[in-house]
Amino acid sequence: MGTTQLESVQEPKYWHLKTVLSEALDSDFAVGEVLPNERDLAARFGVARATLRQALEQLELEGRLQRRRGVGTTVAPPRVGVAVATAQHGWSGDGDEAWQPVECTMAVAPAVVAAALDVEAGETVHVVRRIRMTHGQAVAAELLYVPASSVPELSAIEAASGPARARSVLRELHRLDLDGQDRSVELGSARADDAKELDRLPGAPVLVVTTRYLVARATAAVSVATYRADTCRLTFGDSGALEISHAEQERKAS
Amino acid sequence: MGTTQLESVQEPKYWHLKTVLSEALDSDFAVGEVLPNERDLAARFGVARATLRQALEQLELEGRLQRRRGVGTTVAPPRVGVAVATAQHGWSGDGDEAWQPVECTMAVAPAVVAAALDVEAGETVHVVRRIRMTHGQAVAAELLYVPASSVPELSAIEAASGPARARSVLRELHRLDLDGQDRSVELGSARADDAKELDRLPGAPVLVVTTRYLVARATAAVSVATYRADTCRLTFGDSGALEISHAEQERKAS
Repeated sequence: MGTTQLESVQEPKYWHLKTVLSEALDSDFAVGEVLPNERDLAARFGVARATLRQALEQLELEGRLQRRRGVGTTVAPPRVGVAVATAQHGWSGDGDEAWQPVECTMAVAPAVVAAALDVEAGETVHVVRRIRMTHGQAVAAELLYVPASSVPELSAIEAASGPARARSVLRELHRLDLDGQDRSVELGSARADDAKELDRLPGAPVLVVTTRYLVARATAAVSVATYRADTCRLTFGDSGALEISHAEQERKAS
Repeated sequence: MGTTQLESVQEPKYWHLKTVLSEALDSDFAVGEVLPNERDLAARFGVARATLRQALEQLELEGRLQRRRGVGTTVAPPRVGVAVATAQHGWSGDGDEAWQPVECTMAVAPAVVAAALDVEAGETVHVVRRIRMTHGQAVAAELLYVPASSVPELSAIEAASGPARARSVLRELHRLDLDGQDRSVELGSARADDAKELDRLPGAPVLVVTTRYLVARATAAVSVATYRADTCRLTFGDSGALEISHAEQERKAS
């Protein structure tokens, strides 16, 4: 985003091509339009295919292009702002239907999650799988790890797995008095199961959001959510759901 | 992060190799150790070089490997947690020396920043450049866009550019009564100038954090900060600087 006039820097060839291509995308192509094939593009801009490929990779990282199986490279729509902290002290998904419970099983949490939850190595926890939908598209896949001790009232006679079980666990979580939450965001690559849900290839770049939910000074649950990095811009606001583009619209409307 | 036992999924060859390599990194290599060259590695694991390269790219995305000019591929240390919102209502860099002012010029802001700041197209604003240091390493490069109207008391007789000018602009900003801030995080690629500061190649994956600082219901400044995606894990906490690994240490110490 943006350019700086602070100092001039030696730029590699693919970087210059990226800038030229980016301008061409603005002027000559519409959102969703399929780009010519690599050979034609390389010829059009008078560059080697390797250089072209590097420039296309940059534009994909920046969310300007999308590569889709069986379709080719298309011009991407602007990224969608997805509010990550909709409420400072709420469970994610509280009060909206964006997060759809898909499954719930008992499983051993990864070592780092088990450490955060302070459960014994090898101890199984509830693992709730949810998918976050925005404008009809899956933008995130989540595994929510909940130790049995966090939901002691959970009835054993209810559904043993599936969306109904997931809803039971979430209902019990919502009864807890949440102290707060902390969160980290880092770059990752999509696991095969997440990739399938998100309509990406395994290994596609994703933003991994890890959230600890704190109850009575202990970690009651840990969520590991994988957001599509190509289409999502994660937003965080002081005032709940406020985010840049929404605020802009309000400003313009007033 | 983690594995799921929820369903079995057909995994591509490079994905399986990635898992095997990841385990080998844990057991056979130390942090900072240089990996054997691609030919030897491909032979060792009995895979084609193209497959190996894909697996190495995955591990680089996940922060397990680093590719450095003139060094080769090395085993990366764990990512560093970098607190993004150190105070819910403070200017970033307030009260710590992590952000080092480097330069300050007058320049035209990119269109999207100009729109957020509500300045005319072509109007110049103060552009403060800062570098964020953690453990002696540059982890982020920032451009902070400040319209002249946000810092009306800024004296014209002070230094016209350079770190002294940057500090003057920041001093005036700190006098403002901040209502709040909102923030977005998205994947990007490093611009040439940022890449140089961050010791990366242009186009390397970065996490772009855009922050709007709100004063009297208007945007007083916009910061666009580029964090190294390979080494940084951005942390956000309810309680200021609280972050997962710190909290863990406190828990263990108590």
